[in-house]
Amino acid sequence: MQNLNVAVIGAGYWGPNLVRNFSACQSTSVAAICDLDLAKAQKLADRFGSPKVTADVQELLADSAIEAVAIATPVHTHYPLAKRALQAGKHVLVEKPLTMSSQQGQELVDLAASKNLRLMCDHTFCYTGPVRKIRELVHSGELGEVLYFDSVRVNLGLFQSDVNVLWDLAPHDLSILDFILPDHIKPVAVSATGLDAMNTGFESIAYLTVHYDDSLIGHVHANWLSPVKVRMTLVGGTQKMVVWDDTSASERIKVYDKGVDVDESKREDLLVRYRHGGAHIPVLENTEALLLMVSEFADAIAQGRKPLTSGEDGLLVVKILEAANKSIAQGGAKVDLA
Amino acid sequence: MQNLNVAVIGAGYWGPNLVRNFSACQSTSVAAICDLDLAKAQKLADRFGSPKVTADVQELLADSAIEAVAIATPVHTHYPLAKRALQAGKHVLVEKPLTMSSQQGQELVDLAASKNLRLMCDHTFCYTGPVRKIRELVHSGELGEVLYFDSVRVNLGLFQSDVNVLWDLAPHDLSILDFILPDHIKPVAVSATGLDAMNTGFESIAYLTVHYDDSLIGHVHANWLSPVKVRMTLVGGTQKMVVWDDTSASERIKVYDKGVDVDESKREDLLVRYRHGGAHIPVLENTEALLLMVSEFADAIAQGRKPLTSGEDGLLVVKILEAANKSIAQGGAKVDLA
Amino acid sequence: MQNLNVAVIGAGYWGPNLVRNFSACQSTSVAAICDLDLAKAQKLADRFGSPKVTADVQELLADSAIEAVAIATPVHTHYPLAKRALQAGKHVLVEKPLTMSSQQGQELVDLAASKNLRLMCDHTFCYTGPVRKIRELVHSGELGEVLYFDSVRVNLGLFQSDVNVLWDLAPHDLSILDFILPDHIKPVAVSATGLDAMNTGFESIAYLTVHYDDSLIGHVHANWLSPVKVRMTLVGGTQKMVVWDDTSASERIKVYDKGVDVDESKREDLLVRYRHGGAHIPVLENTEALLLMVSEFADAIAQGRKPLTSGEDGLLVVKILEAANKSIAQGGAKVDLA
Amino acid sequence: MQNLNVAVIGAGYWGPNLVRNFSACQSTSVAAICDLDLAKAQKLADRFGSPKVTADVQELLADSAIEAVAIATPVHTHYPLAKRALQAGKHVLVEKPLTMSSQQGQELVDLAASKNLRLMCDHTFCYTGPVRKIRELVHSGELGEVLYFDSVRVNLGLFQSDVNVLWDLAPHDLSILDFILPDHIKPVAVSATGLDAMNTGFESIAYLTVHYDDSLIGHVHANWLSPVKVRMTLVGGTQKMVVWDDTSASERIKVYDKGVDVDESKREDLLVRYRHGGAHIPVLENTEALLLMVSEFADAIAQGRKPLTSGEDGLLVVKILEAANKSIAQGGAKVDLA
Repeated sequence: MQNLNVAVIGAGYWGPNLVRNFSACQSTSVAAICDLDLAKAQKLADRFGSPKVTADVQELLADSAIEAVAIATPVHTHYPLAKRALQAGKHVLVEKPLTMSSQQGQELVDLAASKNLRLMCDHTFCYTGPVRKIRELVHSGELGEVLYFDSVRVNLGLFQSDVNVLWDLAPHDLSILDFILPDHIKPVAVSATGLDAMNTGFESIAYLTVHYDDSLIGHVHANWLSPVKVRMTLVGGTQKMVVWDDTSASERIKVYDKGVDVDESKREDLLVRYRHGGAHIPVLENTEALLLMVSEFADAIAQGRKPLTSGEDGLLVVKILEAANKSIAQGGAKVDLA
Repeated sequence: MQNLNVAVIGAGYWGPNLVRNFSACQSTSVAAICDLDLAKAQKLADRFGSPKVTADVQELLADSAIEAVAIATPVHTHYPLAKRALQAGKHVLVEKPLTMSSQQGQELVDLAASKNLRLMCDHTFCYTGPVRKIRELVHSGELGEVLYFDSVRVNLGLFQSDVNVLWDLAPHDLSILDFILPDHIKPVAVSATGLDAMNTGFESIAYLTVHYDDSLIGHVHANWLSPVKVRMTLVGGTQKMVVWDDTSASERIKVYDKGVDVDESKREDLLVRYRHGGAHIPVLENTEALLLMVSEFADAIAQGRKPLTSGEDGLLVVKILEAANKSIAQGGAKVDLA
Repeated sequence: MQNLNVAVIGAGYWGPNLVRNFSACQSTSVAAICDLDLAKAQKLADRFGSPKVTADVQELLADSAIEAVAIATPVHTHYPLAKRALQAGKHVLVEKPLTMSSQQGQELVDLAASKNLRLMCDHTFCYTGPVRKIRELVHSGELGEVLYFDSVRVNLGLFQSDVNVLWDLAPHDLSILDFILPDHIKPVAVSATGLDAMNTGFESIAYLTVHYDDSLIGHVHANWLSPVKVRMTLVGGTQKMVVWDDTSASERIKVYDKGVDVDESKREDLLVRYRHGGAHIPVLENTEALLLMVSEFADAIAQGRKPLTSGEDGLLVVKILEAANKSIAQGGAKVDLA
Repeated sequence: MQNLNVAVIGAGYWGPNLVRNFSACQSTSVAAICDLDLAKAQKLADRFGSPKVTADVQELLADSAIEAVAIATPVHTHYPLAKRALQAGKHVLVEKPLTMSSQQGQELVDLAASKNLRLMCDHTFCYTGPVRKIRELVHSGELGEVLYFDSVRVNLGLFQSDVNVLWDLAPHDLSILDFILPDHIKPVAVSATGLDAMNTGFESIAYLTVHYDDSLIGHVHANWLSPVKVRMTLVGGTQKMVVWDDTSASERIKVYDKGVDVDESKREDLLVRYRHGGAHIPVLENTEALLLMVSEFADAIAQGRKPLTSGEDGLLVVKILEAANKSIAQGGAKVDLA
């Protein structure tokens, strides 16, 4: 496979992880590292062997040897940086959330399409063993039709100073929810409630319902004020059901052969039969999620196809979060996504 | 203490538990058992020694030796039976939910008040060890101000044929929520979403937010389609936080000395400090909840005071459920309780 | 099937459970209840409908309508009562432990054999869902060769006044161990250590190793001084391994597709390969164990065959306990069972 | 505090951890790194800034600027290296187990004493938060007299090619057991049983009882063939009891206010009272154990006192393991430690 030359912009919190994995991946190389803090960039370059370091984005984008750019900077800079990179003809990978608004996100998606470039959002969680397993169970039909997705992501802190708890934590759940469902199933509206419990100007506790057509409901409970850390997701299908406890060291996914059948011929009397089969704890692949993500970026570019977690997917998450904020302001009213 | 003569109406599922506890309680006696199925009533009387058995409510209510009536019949009969009993001058205990509608409930509450009779709702859960402990922690001030109450009550089935999952399961959580809070804190509105996943005409999965004034939020997740049974309640206070796992055999309540402090003087920079203290697992009293409930009924009557779980409390639960149904129909819109 | 007429001797702690199940079982009837406390026996007879009540064992044994006797009296009376019953030509079921000594047990086994009568020991645990499942996994070959059996049975109390903790708790584990293994695998020696922690004259903490030929080891940890209740058994096979957590409400048995392979050709370098497959949580049958036990008693009698938990099996448990006491007295020395 | 110049011998598995912590510790410096593989040593020196690298132990020991030596080489080299270092007048830290035999260990202990040098064994676990907390509970008297210590340390693999499972895993438990007990309480004998389940020449499953005088018993279950990882230690005292689950992410230590009282005046009737108080989950310090260990090494040298985990403590562990091997060979017979 041809080697992809990637420049990483941002050497702060997440950038080093990207550099490490772009270096480790067989089909990618780190061609440059860009940060306003050149010393930081240089330190990273020394450790992983990038040939070039710069504080000047313009210089980077002018370099024709660089085919793709990975953006790991503060959220409000995603849009301008990605836009410039796309305009310069680079494929672009952006950290989540894609942008600050759906309008910005839509513009990036459209720009990438018009220039036939790949725009990808780094929804890292989608590349973990548990999520890939759940997606496989759904896509293979083993779970049957998905009836609900319920995710609890709560812990003590860390309070963010510029977004509420949904923008902080729910991108994980929302990207996972979209990732595991069949491609044609898309949300239509959102309801959300929440409380700014510490009077910081942003909700620290929130509940988010994602409405689909009548057959499916999604829900996320995000909370910075829980004394215990809970990472528990239920996915209920017509055939089987999954419990994913991400805090479990060794048994994160359990697939239950359980369910409910309603006797259609006797609906008036509501004859419900319960299936109480056993459960299976599958072995999960443990390749580092981020390595699979950067590899998918390279593959999507090489194959000229949409990546598994595309700009559109990133945009959907932003749309849902935007709608959630509106709904919270109205005390839970349904806000359409269209 | 004077002995209270109680008649129990309904010898079906719950009636025997009431008869057993009214017999066991030092301050009450079972004076009669009433059921359309006289054989059932007789069997119960034989086992616990009731002097009288009848299928005729009128006869029962005409008996001046009977001071109080406990109603354990199907929900739609609660209202007419309780009304007749109050009109006949009897104190009344009603199974939850109090009535089918808030209008009916209000009428009973008003009638009891006008006749100076006790109307009580059997919110049994409020008399269990864990709930009494949480109430004590709140009322003593140990938890500080309550910020949120989050309850998950999910399992596989049993589907009800006449109500949705909220009317089936949430009365527990809603009565507990009201019970543990200081008396002056009352909900103002409700938002709810849900899905009729099996197309039975009633939601089998639902999420309910109870809005208070800005300082508190309550939430219940009720679900008949979960492969695992979860009974997990978080109560977060400004000083301490409680995790109540009712499926735990021996450690149902954990009180965490954890919390968050926001530095008011530096609110712009959002200086948040986290307290990570230890936790305590208290010993819980294990007197049977139902015995404490019937004893409270007798005490409230003897002392001429409102019972701990009064008709008003039962009415509040019905109001919330009624509002929840309206909200679900509107996709989550906020419905005022006033 | 012909109905078996059983007399139950002992109306104390366990007797009522036997009476209830002999009454419920399709192939047995309670013909008489015998207890020195006639009132107790009568109460039991009233509840379950036994035709006869007596305080006189002699009278009972002289009754030719009674074909079998179930003995649920204090342990030191097992031997004399069982002996008289066998001499009177009755089939005999005895609570565990079978007798106070292996000499007594051997005499009962021999007597039953010489008179062609069934002698059964009520090792109730062997009839529970988890144990039947483990036995099935072993006997079907799914687990491969059993390498070890490790059982922890600890809790706070109840201190016994006449036996040590092994005689109190380990009969469960020892009867289970024998029950799940293939019939031809029998223990050869015992080592045990323990501590009389509260200076009561009997060990309240003890560890028991059951030696087999070189391929298998069994171990029991019994403890009356643990702050937590643990009921955890590991059964390791060459193909699969079982974890049985009897305190789990819904997932008591997990079958792990895990193991170790040693490369024989490279034994010097010890090339060990580990198999890390998934796990399965099977559905367990939940018929009451005691009902299956009394049914097995009737079947064994009807079919003239040895019961699943025979007098010999009860004798083996007594032999191991006897040897364990000797070993403890010697600080752990190996005591042969031959 | 004066700075201690330490040379680390062995740059393999554990050496880098020692170098990292000797570098991080305020009171120590890494003066040299020694390994036969000079490249390995150099790499480590580059990363943490050691001024000197050598493959020649003699050269190292001749360097008068080096005051202390830390030995992290294969076990069979501990004795000769430590001996040479002590003879050269260096203080010595040795990885566990101290030596291959108690004779070697005794010689080192005696040599250090005769030269007034510090000999320390790196029992890292003793410096972890849970173990320090348990020691504190015992030494403060909060637990009362320790009655038993029971530790389960089981998982799948890793099979060692030169020692049995006790020598591999039990040094942790044995060093912890000795560390938490009051100094004057010392073991007197050992019993052990085990099975070489995979026929590799070494036991892969073993049970070890440590006998004290009549008031205390210690026990370790070590197993390379468990499908699940268990790290569970019970410590029972006359006043309180501790459960330490080292696999728990957030609640590793629980202190139970539970216990047993025997009424001495009624000993014949064995009147036992059980205390069922609550439990406390303390906050544990989370300084890296190894950093505390190297700091203790420096402190003990500076203060001319015995370190918390001294050569004598390392020797005791070796003596117990040696005795355990003898006991296993005899099927569990008690082997004196004297």
